[in-house]
Amino acid sequence: MKPTIDDIKHLYKPKVRPIEWRNDGRLILLDQSKLPFETAYVTLSSPEATADAIHSMKVRGAPAIGITAAYGMVLALFNSSPSSLEESIQALRRAKTVLDAARPTAINLAWATRRMLDKATKHVNEGTAKTPAQLRELLIEEANTIFDEEYEAEIAMGLHGLEKINEGDTVLTQCNAGGLATGTGLGTATAPVKIAHALGIKVSMIAPETRPWLQGARLTVYELIMEGIPTTLITDTAVGLVMYKGMVNSVMVGADRILRDGHVFNKIGTMKEAIIAHEFGIPFYALAPSSTFDMKSKVDEVVIEERDPDEVRKIRGVPITVEGVPVYNPVFDPTPPKYVTGIITEKGIIYPPFSRNIPRVIGE
Amino acid sequence: MKPTIDDIKHLYKPKVRPIEWRNDGRLILLDQSKLPFETAYVTLSSPEATADAIHSMKVRGAPAIGITAAYGMVLALFNSSPSSLEESIQALRRAKTVLDAARPTAINLAWATRRMLDKATKHVNEGTAKTPAQLRELLIEEANTIFDEEYEAEIAMGLHGLEKINEGDTVLTQCNAGGLATGTGLGTATAPVKIAHALGIKVSMIAPETRPWLQGARLTVYELIMEGIPTTLITDTAVGLVMYKGMVNSVMVGADRILRDGHVFNKIGTMKEAIIAHEFGIPFYALAPSSTFDMKSKVDEVVIEERDPDEVRKIRGVPITVEGVPVYNPVFDPTPPKYVTGIITEKGIIYPPFSRNIPRVIGE
Repeated sequence: MKPTIDDIKHLYKPKVRPIEWRNDGRLILLDQSKLPFETAYVTLSSPEATADAIHSMKVRGAPAIGITAAYGMVLALFNSSPSSLEESIQALRRAKTVLDAARPTAINLAWATRRMLDKATKHVNEGTAKTPAQLRELLIEEANTIFDEEYEAEIAMGLHGLEKINEGDTVLTQCNAGGLATGTGLGTATAPVKIAHALGIKVSMIAPETRPWLQGARLTVYELIMEGIPTTLITDTAVGLVMYKGMVNSVMVGADRILRDGHVFNKIGTMKEAIIAHEFGIPFYALAPSSTFDMKSKVDEVVIEERDPDEVRKIRGVPITVEGVPVYNPVFDPTPPKYVTGIITEKGIIYPPFSRNIPRVIGE
Repeated sequence: MKPTIDDIKHLYKPKVRPIEWRNDGRLILLDQSKLPFETAYVTLSSPEATADAIHSMKVRGAPAIGITAAYGMVLALFNSSPSSLEESIQALRRAKTVLDAARPTAINLAWATRRMLDKATKHVNEGTAKTPAQLRELLIEEANTIFDEEYEAEIAMGLHGLEKINEGDTVLTQCNAGGLATGTGLGTATAPVKIAHALGIKVSMIAPETRPWLQGARLTVYELIMEGIPTTLITDTAVGLVMYKGMVNSVMVGADRILRDGHVFNKIGTMKEAIIAHEFGIPFYALAPSSTFDMKSKVDEVVIEERDPDEVRKIRGVPITVEGVPVYNPVFDPTPPKYVTGIITEKGIIYPPFSRNIPRVIGE
């Protein structure tokens, strides 16, 4: 019988816990800026400290930032010890301002703080919270819900993705769409393999290093090894050869944005994996929650972010080329729908033709 | 009118001179192990010093090693000041042993030292060299001939490749198949662009960094910038996007071995460029002299060299991943003939069907 989300929740516990909430008002973050060279945790007890941790990339990845910010809002109610509901709402408003400024372009951040503030206001207005202490408990519950919704969506994706994994498979990924990026420890692209592994199915992964930021080498390798999943690191240049040699059964990657017609925007280098997989008859899947879909933009309207040339000219501070050489450093690429075998969401697997099936599954 | 090899020799002088011979018995090498961070030259005056420079990678690239070794043989006749022809031959034999041991797997090395020794023996036996001084002059001539043959072959490749370059083109390459690797300053894959630039045709290049050894970032960028050719460095992950976005008019790469059926073995990452170029309708050319063709091996018989995992785990000595993580580090890949638009040799451009046309142009 097919396992349920609850089955997996009982069976599988993530080995890496990037975000842990303690009910005495402490938020414990795994410091991702030090990974994989040092496994260090920071303890946060104020919205300001949380904002600082977000700003300094101790936590990264859109869902992880959202969850962290939600708990950061709760910390406002511990930190300032408000004596009235009014003071509580004021403290939450101040916290939202501080947190939103930590990474202004991270949509999940402002979304999570808005949701927390709205929930607080509703509880106060509707009288479900009668004291600051009650409000605090209800907001802890709300932040936990944000965490759980993310985690359950990932388990759902993992269970749908499991249909695409056979005993003995090796899955190629790109970048880190793992439990570090989502904050839950499970992840999107890594969910099917982690769940398969937990169910006793033999699986392994190949992680390309993913220049310029090396998230594959630094983060994906770290979290997969912690989970006990056999993982091989390759250079980005070796991506073609591993597929040519039949070392890869499928490609599973995350997504930063998916368009209505099936264009998948993800970390630079994803498109080349998709094209080569297509050429060699290897299935290519993008895994992302339904919130990743952008039903309005056309592919040419999406601006591909270009970052600091020094990210390419240097690696961990060490120069690798002629000083000041011109660099083109885009950080995402759009994989055309032609190369996408399927899109795995918490609502199920979406197959081509995407223009018809994406609106059907995701809604307009 | 189409320019000749002599026209180009007059018009174009390489800006980077990796190997320079001085007739007073000095061999000047650009120390490639320090590039691009330092432009330093070493002066060699004995076969031992030459062998050491080869061993310590001050000079690298098959043709460059061959040329260096040829001059290293000449140095034996300066260094030991032989008083007879017999002593001269003995000195050359000793030098060959020392030089051949510097990098035992470099075929060009033993080929060049053998050619020099055979030539010396012939001059002695046939009486064309009557004194040690005469023999020395004749061997300087022979080493210069080895250099010139390489240089003229590259110009010929460059002139054939020029047919594939239009005003305003941008050419994508991989690794370093430039004048540093060949020792002449011109190179194979870079020859068409350098000659076009010398002829006043507007051209530019895109160089991927080429992990694990970063020859693109370290060497290709260096020599192209020295030539004044507009060059942009990209990560290996950005190779797909630059082709998708129409930023590339053709791909030109070198080759380490080309099979009779058109399989092109070259630096890891080349195959992915070829597949993506094919997909987007961008022509893909391999440039190599006819000595690169292996008319006997089948693709599955060629062993792809795997190197030290630490080349991937570290970059310039700095760790980038979990210590001891399993790594697959192949350094070449085979591009199937299907993705090769043409092979540019000093004898002309070879088009598909390769199985018929390679033997016709190259011989059996």
